[in-house]
Amino acid sequence: MTSQIFSPGVEQVLDLAGIFVFALSGGLLAIRKNFDVFGIAVLAEATALGGGVLRDVLIGAIPPAAFTNLGYFLTPLVATAVVFFLHPEVARINRTVQALDALGLGLFCVTGTAKAHDYGLAVIPSIALGMLTAVGGGVIRDVLAMETPSLLRWDRSLYAVPALVGATLTAILIAVNGLGAVTGSAAALFAFGFRMLAIHYNWQAPRAWHRGSSNAGEH
Amino acid sequence: MTSQIFSPGVEQVLDLAGIFVFALSGGLLAIRKNFDVFGIAVLAEATALGGGVLRDVLIGAIPPAAFTNLGYFLTPLVATAVVFFLHPEVARINRTVQALDALGLGLFCVTGTAKAHDYGLAVIPSIALGMLTAVGGGVIRDVLAMETPSLLRWDRSLYAVPALVGATLTAILIAVNGLGAVTGSAAALFAFGFRMLAIHYNWQAPRAWHRGSSNAGEH
Amino acid sequence: MTSQIFSPGVEQVLDLAGIFVFALSGGLLAIRKNFDVFGIAVLAEATALGGGVLRDVLIGAIPPAAFTNLGYFLTPLVATAVVFFLHPEVARINRTVQALDALGLGLFCVTGTAKAHDYGLAVIPSIALGMLTAVGGGVIRDVLAMETPSLLRWDRSLYAVPALVGATLTAILIAVNGLGAVTGSAAALFAFGFRMLAIHYNWQAPRAWHRGSSNAGEH
Repeated sequence: MTSQIFSPGVEQVLDLAGIFVFALSGGLLAIRKNFDVFGIAVLAEATALGGGVLRDVLIGAIPPAAFTNLGYFLTPLVATAVVFFLHPEVARINRTVQALDALGLGLFCVTGTAKAHDYGLAVIPSIALGMLTAVGGGVIRDVLAMETPSLLRWDRSLYAVPALVGATLTAILIAVNGLGAVTGSAAALFAFGFRMLAIHYNWQAPRAWHRGSSNAGEH
Repeated sequence: MTSQIFSPGVEQVLDLAGIFVFALSGGLLAIRKNFDVFGIAVLAEATALGGGVLRDVLIGAIPPAAFTNLGYFLTPLVATAVVFFLHPEVARINRTVQALDALGLGLFCVTGTAKAHDYGLAVIPSIALGMLTAVGGGVIRDVLAMETPSLLRWDRSLYAVPALVGATLTAILIAVNGLGAVTGSAAALFAFGFRMLAIHYNWQAPRAWHRGSSNAGEH
Repeated sequence: MTSQIFSPGVEQVLDLAGIFVFALSGGLLAIRKNFDVFGIAVLAEATALGGGVLRDVLIGAIPPAAFTNLGYFLTPLVATAVVFFLHPEVARINRTVQALDALGLGLFCVTGTAKAHDYGLAVIPSIALGMLTAVGGGVIRDVLAMETPSLLRWDRSLYAVPALVGATLTAILIAVNGLGAVTGSAAALFAFGFRMLAIHYNWQAPRAWHRGSSNAGEH
């Protein structure tokens, strides 16, 4: 149903890779919160599939892809097994996980925008839904684990902005009828690279101005 | 698609006004929680559009109006800019913001009930969805910001009840085939006035009876 | 629309019983959190209907049954009145409430799986949605009350697993074309009995392995 950006096989592999790393991030948080193995699986599923499910519900792609593509459902269970047995190792390669997460972010903002547009949404809403696809699972993960959503916190490096940029590039490519495997990959890689730089240099977004206050940054 | 209560232009203006003030309340909470500018925008969008999106998903109005009417999406961004730069001023006119929020509450419980009925729902569910339209965004706002939903707390003045009354009046008007610009405005104003009185006199709802306990009110 | 497992009258009675006890659990938590009477009603409704509403949105059964069957909507209000006036008594019969909750769990995982399958979902997604029907309301309840979802916590007795088993049994019955009043009841009773044993013996699920640490269970 999605405008095929990549060949079906490639898209499937990329999707599953993104789902896998998002599930890892959910599973690691679940372990940090001391959840049991079923709690880990639930949080892995919700993190990995939540953004896409929200998008699909909002655009009317019912049932959501997560409920029609068995691989989407099973992949987070594999991630659950991995973090259950290997979480010290997974946590130790935190930089690698962050890089894979950035790759998932880049991929999902592109495919999410394209799918929303395929379902007839206009440019700006498609961009919004592309972002939602990329960041929604993480917000659901944090809410279920009773953590302030990492997306909203000022002390985390930019996360929404790379997704916004990747989604906007995709929308532009659609507008000029130029979205394909090469250009779509480029947009995803751009968002990925942006996010990696944000992590590396700890780029943060400004908070609201606290005028006439010398300790704006502290409180 | 909605039964036109007001002329299209008037309804659009009222809708955007309601969205704007709901977005202000989300933005102010985000600033109080020290979120960055993107967190402010996300919370403003979620607060302003959340109730209507929930209603639209539940009645099958897909994609939700928030994703087809560009003004709905952009208005919270304007509110974000306003609170970002002017939040001391906005917080200082808190009574005005509360009054505007009450106006949004009154308006959305009426239009939400009417839209649910238009989509074929029966009287009681339409009332429930009218309430949800009015209060849903605030609940999403509080959950995302990790606050106990203001709607549920005993120490806040009545919020759900004015929305319930406004939605019920609207359902009665629909039942007697008398919903129009004048009567719809009257229902919205009644809910608005009720909410303003609840704020002014700090009307609160009772909590469960704690029998045989002399300090029922304290704990 | 659902494949009629039970006769319509029987199914209606069972559904309402399940909704009633789920609403009791929501209402009791609301009282413990000191919410006012409207907060109690909101939490009772969300707990009782949340799982089914999520399932219906995901399978495209719009509007959800909760908004078309008046009894579904009114039952939680009855439960609200009961806990409002009688919460010490209700809390005192906590074991009875837990048993009724287990019955609701058993019933909803069966009917939820059957309904998802009726709407054309494959076996595994139907099982997932059956589980979601049974446990979703409780998760919504906990998130709204700002509690870590009981479903995810390691220190609670097994809850997801009985639902998973009941849903899986139902899917097997559907696959062999053997789902009916007797077999459906048996599946629900099996899940119910499993849950009761989990409560009685405090069966818990394992948490992730903390290797090289002698106090894995403590932290």
